[in-house]
Amino acid sequence: MEYHIRYDASQEALLLLDQRLLPAREEFFVCRRTEDIVAALAAMVVRGAPAIGVTAAWGCVLAALEVDMEVEQASDWRPALERRLERIASARPTAVNLRWAVDRMRRLWTPDLSATRLAAVWREEAAALQQQDIAGNRALGAFGAQLVPRGARIMTHCNAGALATAGYGTALGVIRAAWERDTSITVIANETRPFLQGARLTAYELAREGIPVRVACDNACALLMQRGLVDCVVLGADRIAANGDTANKIGTYGVALLAHEHGIPFYVAAPISTVDPHTPDGAAIPIEEREAREVTHMGDAQITPDGVPVYNFAFDVTPARLITAIITEKGLVRAPYDEALAKLLALN
Amino acid sequence: MEYHIRYDASQEALLLLDQRLLPAREEFFVCRRTEDIVAALAAMVVRGAPAIGVTAAWGCVLAALEVDMEVEQASDWRPALERRLERIASARPTAVNLRWAVDRMRRLWTPDLSATRLAAVWREEAAALQQQDIAGNRALGAFGAQLVPRGARIMTHCNAGALATAGYGTALGVIRAAWERDTSITVIANETRPFLQGARLTAYELAREGIPVRVACDNACALLMQRGLVDCVVLGADRIAANGDTANKIGTYGVALLAHEHGIPFYVAAPISTVDPHTPDGAAIPIEEREAREVTHMGDAQITPDGVPVYNFAFDVTPARLITAIITEKGLVRAPYDEALAKLLALN
Repeated sequence: MEYHIRYDASQEALLLLDQRLLPAREEFFVCRRTEDIVAALAAMVVRGAPAIGVTAAWGCVLAALEVDMEVEQASDWRPALERRLERIASARPTAVNLRWAVDRMRRLWTPDLSATRLAAVWREEAAALQQQDIAGNRALGAFGAQLVPRGARIMTHCNAGALATAGYGTALGVIRAAWERDTSITVIANETRPFLQGARLTAYELAREGIPVRVACDNACALLMQRGLVDCVVLGADRIAANGDTANKIGTYGVALLAHEHGIPFYVAAPISTVDPHTPDGAAIPIEEREAREVTHMGDAQITPDGVPVYNFAFDVTPARLITAIITEKGLVRAPYDEALAKLLALN
Repeated sequence: MEYHIRYDASQEALLLLDQRLLPAREEFFVCRRTEDIVAALAAMVVRGAPAIGVTAAWGCVLAALEVDMEVEQASDWRPALERRLERIASARPTAVNLRWAVDRMRRLWTPDLSATRLAAVWREEAAALQQQDIAGNRALGAFGAQLVPRGARIMTHCNAGALATAGYGTALGVIRAAWERDTSITVIANETRPFLQGARLTAYELAREGIPVRVACDNACALLMQRGLVDCVVLGADRIAANGDTANKIGTYGVALLAHEHGIPFYVAAPISTVDPHTPDGAAIPIEEREAREVTHMGDAQITPDGVPVYNFAFDVTPARLITAIITEKGLVRAPYDEALAKLLALN
């Protein structure tokens, strides 16, 4: 796939393939200012933990250019930029990658740099981060592919693909790498209500590459497992706590319990940047609640009766005990996760 | 609620509230011929095991009137009618109520009756069946309400309400009866993809009566249980095998496993006519597969990319071991189900 996150230096703008419109339309959403980045993150023009990290990094570049142009008193630009970085880092609460990417930029912000020079430094760093994400995904994919049996029917949830990362995918990176070795694998994409990342995005990515994929409603998961149609589950993560508890798209915890009950291996594929050593366990991960309209409407059509409230938690937390292994760009991690993850972070 | 299944004797037509259009529009689908009934059942104008049983009973009346009017050779009307009854009984494969209702009509078909007279006999029987279903639901509701703790947050899946029966509901009958005793109960309606019976029909029925209801996407079930937001699950059944294994709307088996894992009671509410002594266990229940378009489209809007296949099983089977109790119009049934159900059927 071509890049869905593109920084156009000729106009100093970040172009984001608008994932709300896929698969029906391929249009780019143009971000020129910090607020465009925040809006794109909040509205899920771009989503997926690594992809929003890369977007945030480019957002820092736009923020630096913005204060350089607009803040008249030279002494004021630093607090103005700091406020913008915080806006970006807090655009969504659950994925740790957003803040991780902003912190990585912030570490390069030395007192000697002018805003102009800082923007140039960050431009290079954002590009490096984007390339590293792709390289990391390829390494992760190669490690994960070893876990996939010949001819496996792999279930995935949400979209942890090229569209959720800088360009190759974590869970779909594992699937891409497995497919390169064995074209008899097939994929079940859970549709993933309410945003339908599975039906819209995972199916789109895999179908484009000729990897056989079937879409199933989320509530078919238990039946498909009961019928022996699922050999393993591979999906992504938005934040992994120090003890291995993993936040990912709503529904993941249910899939994990059902996989456990049916004796099906359950793998989480995520870059090491998804591991947050400052979050001790799942209970400490904030779970985003999103607006009701995502559930009550499908496009412009209203599904539910007027005035009926909904639950719309965007994520859930899967306890470490249900996770067979975590696949990272540095190798596989297995229980006990607290030790194994600490060792991995020390290596990094 | 007013009746959603109405036989208009002045025009010899069955009027069915078209459940495909709810909650946006309240329109009746008019059946004058056998084929209208078969089409209404297949397209899910009306759905829900007891409701399709009642519809099938009225369909037999229309079939008898049809052969009376159209079959010229008097000797030919019996096989012509038999063919029509079989068309009705096999319009959908999973729910046993469809064939049960047709068989109940067939038992009144004695050799002495003319087609005209048979239609009159069946008209009375269909009306009796409809009234008995409502009375049975009220009895079932009263038994079930005893299981509902004060202030309970009750999860239900699909729609086992007035719209799924002749007029009061099985699972929603339990909820209605519980609400009459305790207005502090609340309901979580799983939206129930792909047909959205929960979001559209259960929310509509409960909101009309002022019973507090929230809609959740099917994949939120595990999180809601993990957070302690669910005190019990009550839902319906399309067929109960002799050993207690229960076929119900796709997703039910997953809800049952998740409830079991979280220590939440899981109740099935169904009239005794749902129990099929000729089906030994869940493996013997045929599971309907429906057309892909229900999953790939939402109204006219296409969700999935062109050419991507889907799974669309309409039902799944919950093993008896996961069912805390079955609520019927004759009382509660608990494990071991084979003995308890046989005793219940002998009483009936």
